[in-house]
Amino acid sequence: MSQKLNAALLGASGYTGADLMRLGALHPNIQFTVLTANTHAGKPVDEVFPHLGGVDLPQLQRAEGVDWSVLDVVFCGLPHATSQQIVSEIVKLTDKPKIIDMSADFRLRDPEHYKTWYGNAHVDPTLQDIAAYGLTEHNRQAIREKRIIACPGCYPTAVLLALLPLAKAQLINVDALIVDAKSGVTGAGRGLKQNTLAAEAGESISPYAVGAHRHTAELEQEIGAVAGKTIKVNFTPHLIPMSRGELITAHVELEKGKSVNDLRAALESTYEDEPFVRVLAQGKMPSTGMVRGSNTCVINVFEDRIPGRAVVIAALDNLVKGSAGQAVQNFNVAFGLEETTGLSQLPMFP
Amino acid sequence: MSQKLNAALLGASGYTGADLMRLGALHPNIQFTVLTANTHAGKPVDEVFPHLGGVDLPQLQRAEGVDWSVLDVVFCGLPHATSQQIVSEIVKLTDKPKIIDMSADFRLRDPEHYKTWYGNAHVDPTLQDIAAYGLTEHNRQAIREKRIIACPGCYPTAVLLALLPLAKAQLINVDALIVDAKSGVTGAGRGLKQNTLAAEAGESISPYAVGAHRHTAELEQEIGAVAGKTIKVNFTPHLIPMSRGELITAHVELEKGKSVNDLRAALESTYEDEPFVRVLAQGKMPSTGMVRGSNTCVINVFEDRIPGRAVVIAALDNLVKGSAGQAVQNFNVAFGLEETTGLSQLPMFP
Amino acid sequence: MSQKLNAALLGASGYTGADLMRLGALHPNIQFTVLTANTHAGKPVDEVFPHLGGVDLPQLQRAEGVDWSVLDVVFCGLPHATSQQIVSEIVKLTDKPKIIDMSADFRLRDPEHYKTWYGNAHVDPTLQDIAAYGLTEHNRQAIREKRIIACPGCYPTAVLLALLPLAKAQLINVDALIVDAKSGVTGAGRGLKQNTLAAEAGESISPYAVGAHRHTAELEQEIGAVAGKTIKVNFTPHLIPMSRGELITAHVELEKGKSVNDLRAALESTYEDEPFVRVLAQGKMPSTGMVRGSNTCVINVFEDRIPGRAVVIAALDNLVKGSAGQAVQNFNVAFGLEETTGLSQLPMFP
Amino acid sequence: MSQKLNAALLGASGYTGADLMRLGALHPNIQFTVLTANTHAGKPVDEVFPHLGGVDLPQLQRAEGVDWSVLDVVFCGLPHATSQQIVSEIVKLTDKPKIIDMSADFRLRDPEHYKTWYGNAHVDPTLQDIAAYGLTEHNRQAIREKRIIACPGCYPTAVLLALLPLAKAQLINVDALIVDAKSGVTGAGRGLKQNTLAAEAGESISPYAVGAHRHTAELEQEIGAVAGKTIKVNFTPHLIPMSRGELITAHVELEKGKSVNDLRAALESTYEDEPFVRVLAQGKMPSTGMVRGSNTCVINVFEDRIPGRAVVIAALDNLVKGSAGQAVQNFNVAFGLEETTGLSQLPMFP
Repeated sequence: MSQKLNAALLGASGYTGADLMRLGALHPNIQFTVLTANTHAGKPVDEVFPHLGGVDLPQLQRAEGVDWSVLDVVFCGLPHATSQQIVSEIVKLTDKPKIIDMSADFRLRDPEHYKTWYGNAHVDPTLQDIAAYGLTEHNRQAIREKRIIACPGCYPTAVLLALLPLAKAQLINVDALIVDAKSGVTGAGRGLKQNTLAAEAGESISPYAVGAHRHTAELEQEIGAVAGKTIKVNFTPHLIPMSRGELITAHVELEKGKSVNDLRAALESTYEDEPFVRVLAQGKMPSTGMVRGSNTCVINVFEDRIPGRAVVIAALDNLVKGSAGQAVQNFNVAFGLEETTGLSQLPMFP
Repeated sequence: MSQKLNAALLGASGYTGADLMRLGALHPNIQFTVLTANTHAGKPVDEVFPHLGGVDLPQLQRAEGVDWSVLDVVFCGLPHATSQQIVSEIVKLTDKPKIIDMSADFRLRDPEHYKTWYGNAHVDPTLQDIAAYGLTEHNRQAIREKRIIACPGCYPTAVLLALLPLAKAQLINVDALIVDAKSGVTGAGRGLKQNTLAAEAGESISPYAVGAHRHTAELEQEIGAVAGKTIKVNFTPHLIPMSRGELITAHVELEKGKSVNDLRAALESTYEDEPFVRVLAQGKMPSTGMVRGSNTCVINVFEDRIPGRAVVIAALDNLVKGSAGQAVQNFNVAFGLEETTGLSQLPMFP
Repeated sequence: MSQKLNAALLGASGYTGADLMRLGALHPNIQFTVLTANTHAGKPVDEVFPHLGGVDLPQLQRAEGVDWSVLDVVFCGLPHATSQQIVSEIVKLTDKPKIIDMSADFRLRDPEHYKTWYGNAHVDPTLQDIAAYGLTEHNRQAIREKRIIACPGCYPTAVLLALLPLAKAQLINVDALIVDAKSGVTGAGRGLKQNTLAAEAGESISPYAVGAHRHTAELEQEIGAVAGKTIKVNFTPHLIPMSRGELITAHVELEKGKSVNDLRAALESTYEDEPFVRVLAQGKMPSTGMVRGSNTCVINVFEDRIPGRAVVIAALDNLVKGSAGQAVQNFNVAFGLEETTGLSQLPMFP
Repeated sequence: MSQKLNAALLGASGYTGADLMRLGALHPNIQFTVLTANTHAGKPVDEVFPHLGGVDLPQLQRAEGVDWSVLDVVFCGLPHATSQQIVSEIVKLTDKPKIIDMSADFRLRDPEHYKTWYGNAHVDPTLQDIAAYGLTEHNRQAIREKRIIACPGCYPTAVLLALLPLAKAQLINVDALIVDAKSGVTGAGRGLKQNTLAAEAGESISPYAVGAHRHTAELEQEIGAVAGKTIKVNFTPHLIPMSRGELITAHVELEKGKSVNDLRAALESTYEDEPFVRVLAQGKMPSTGMVRGSNTCVINVFEDRIPGRAVVIAALDNLVKGSAGQAVQNFNVAFGLEETTGLSQLPMFP
């Protein structure tokens, strides 16, 4: 397909918005005709993102007054809660655009879970019927069929790519998953917060939301679904002094008689034909530097010194595979395009 | 043109080599058939650059034994002196491949200058007759015609893009140029040096080679040529704690009666149709973050508080526009391709 | 003297406040009895600065209601304008505490200059009669005698330590001073700004306030005073991706017949007995990594390639010698203590 | 005691050496008379560490020819294996100096373990009889009595301070300890390695030595000793882009009937009178930024979402409490000085 699809991006002034513009501006099938950023309405994009100067993009505008019915796709980079409201309106007004949401608002199938973890009631729980959990490699059918695609959180993308095949193959004890995660500061967004000031985040590592991070809900939902039961997961994120990149270290208990080789085999067979997931050769260490700026997730599995356990490690760029890149990948799937379209950029190192 | 040209990259294990592979692997007209890295011969590329895992590239090999005659182009990312030797051999053996050299070995037209600044005698001064100084925007004719293209140093690329138009238009006093420059650590290469260890380069800024940096020779040669006289330039580089990016701050004395507006006009008219040089709107600050990973150079000019003076600032990514990107741009020019081919990547921010 | 003096710190929740507490808490003659931070009143210090947990410090409180008359010294780390108001009140209420101000409010002797550069009228210009410009090494007499000590800006501290001796000895042309400066992000304070977010400031260098930075006023005042005339200075600051540290590179024109050796001699003779200013051996490069966390300023002078010019470089820690450390040094001078008291910490490297 | 003790530092050109000089130069009871650094013999200290310029320290010299018998204490910052050889010689030659070793050479009581983990046979296993494991807070008696004090590894210091009290009180299952650790680059030393170049370590996180890090041996030895059995520990370190600091996240299984409150109580009672270990208030996050440059270790314990589990987190500065600071603390203990002597520096933030 060489046709340009008519695209809107809501929330163009945030970091995921920026990376979606970076990728979308060069995508042969995406034509941005609407970019919203309410507090910056009326400005050219390069007022809020100088690196996009010289790129042919429409001016920023408010979301009010957009004619949704002429759009093919709406990428949504708004904060949670805001996302539900605007998507709910769009769905009521028109059957037209497919919605690819990068917020948390449609990820949790059970509205009660949404309320528990996000603090506000779901605006319209019936929308979950038309929403797919957009972990591309594991959910293409639904991504093609559903109106709303809820792109997973950045952390869950890495964790689920690493652990879902192992849970599906019943190789690991899903009741004892310990996920120690590390993220650069862009994971915290562009909002002004003291802990992401360069002087505070620099030269320091801090754990945060220990035992209480919202992404835990996605992990429990998706791994629980595969395992056919309710589970609780240890998810322990840390903020580290870099901009992009997330690495998760999953400490897992093997099911009886299973070995690290079984884990490796399950990962390799799941991903052997996948363009964006790479299981590394034995002994090779995943690192975020290997994937910076690209849509690739790298995974490897290691022996634990404690018998009967293993360590599974995955790394990705939180703004690409963990957000805007996966959104574009889902767009490609949803519209029947070659899945790698517009996502061929190689990682930038150093 | 959709044909693939047969390309070699010499010195594939350095940072400029890495970025040339990043760009070249996706370039529709480049097919790498030879990648050399003597100390890593026999290894796959991803042994030395894990981020290039999964990319279809030949194994690393030694330069000895390469059949140069079947190649269309040789990109050379070797250290100076080494570069001269191998290019000299290639030229003797065959008329075939065009040579795009990223080292300093063919930049200085006067072999005496080469010896003075680089410490060793030029291997074959006659090669300078077939060499063009590859500052693309200012030298396309020669780049098309000559056998060897000597890509400028990273710093000179920024300085000359900023100052050449001003010198040509006789707007500034070329005998009083003060260029205060700042570079990330990749400018120092991948060699193991104490001052580029993360613990030493991090959280510190250090000037180096004050009054004695080799890139000074290129500045004096190129600006002197335009001015029609021998000049001396103050060039004061600083190492700053980041990976990619260079920013130069040129403090210039205006010729009598000239103003900042004249400077702006000269820059704008020189670059208005250039795809990779962007003169920013009045008051906008160039920064390396605006161009990271892209082939763009951004420039702006500012009033100085001291009457009769101005400040000209330019920023680029030293590994792209300052090296591998400009090499690809020169390749495009040399082979009659659309000049932007393979160089459309947008900057990565944050 | 082993007596503890009764000290207040106003503005304890900013970075200069933090460093003043770091230094003051171990100073044998400082007893903090009042710490103000209006928006955090009622909190223990370690709520706003967790690294100060375990240190015996009073709770944060509002400035209103403080009994100034029982204090020996008030360190003031408030923003400009706010500082003038509160100091004006203190001076009206009591003769008691000496005021050591780290803001810009009492640095400019001419209230018109203050208004021009800071935008608001001086609250009480008569206060300038009792204020000393607190560049310790050059102004001890006034620091001892005056009620208010206006600590210089961080940049001016470095620039003036480097250039004042040269201007005094009439070695350089003060009408052609070009000062290219580089600072880490703490120079911008703890306020929430987009450009000091880790994701924006990281991996980038940006010039700012070119030709318009407020510290220019101090440079012109102090160097102009020494030179006996009104001057204009080029001051071009850049934000670089590190936390602490400032380095200034001054490009100077020598007076006829003067040489770099004359400059070196002037600097060495000025500072040979100074504990906190170190003129480096010939050829040694100042860097901020050499002085991080300490009250030391390092300076060196270099040949310029352009005849008749030189490059003078100085580095310091903006929060110590550039602010809190110099404040403590001034406190020592003002109260007749050994000048190094409480300032013996060595630089932290790496 | 106000007497100066005669001290040598072996290996003065490494990072731990640098921090020992930083601390020792201001310690009232340490007089460095010998500083060795074989490859830099004959140089002043500030040739290898410019930040120590101006400090009164002897020139660097070779270790050969030192008269050990006049020394009171030898601090040893040499690499492992080298350390054993020189300490073995000293012990044979004289009864005089106490040896405070920061290498791994005397940490493992069982010479077989040493050989297994470090690859070379122990030079003189009988030396272990006169060696104490120098985890100060848990081993003061031996530190006072033994000739050699083997300071723990940087990681083990953090892990053991966090877990030993819990293991002693039988609150956690020592057969299922999962320790996920993160370190800045100084942990890798000053040797020239590609992975610690600023361009490679910057903006990336990489796990390393998964399941095979040598510090595991210390953890198993010390926790196993307390538990009275042989154990295996999961220890999974990661390199993160900062200079100083280590944070360990221990995922532990509670013994039946035990709670997070029990863990907190055990930690608080163990450390309530300790000057350098601080158990944080409930919910407060340890971070390396809180302790940078200081000898403090901060610890906290958190509920895990998985019932019956907890997360214990500790942070320290690897060069201070994890190395040179603990060495000075052990010196203080060994010589009967006030334990905090020379270690009062507050953390430097930001």
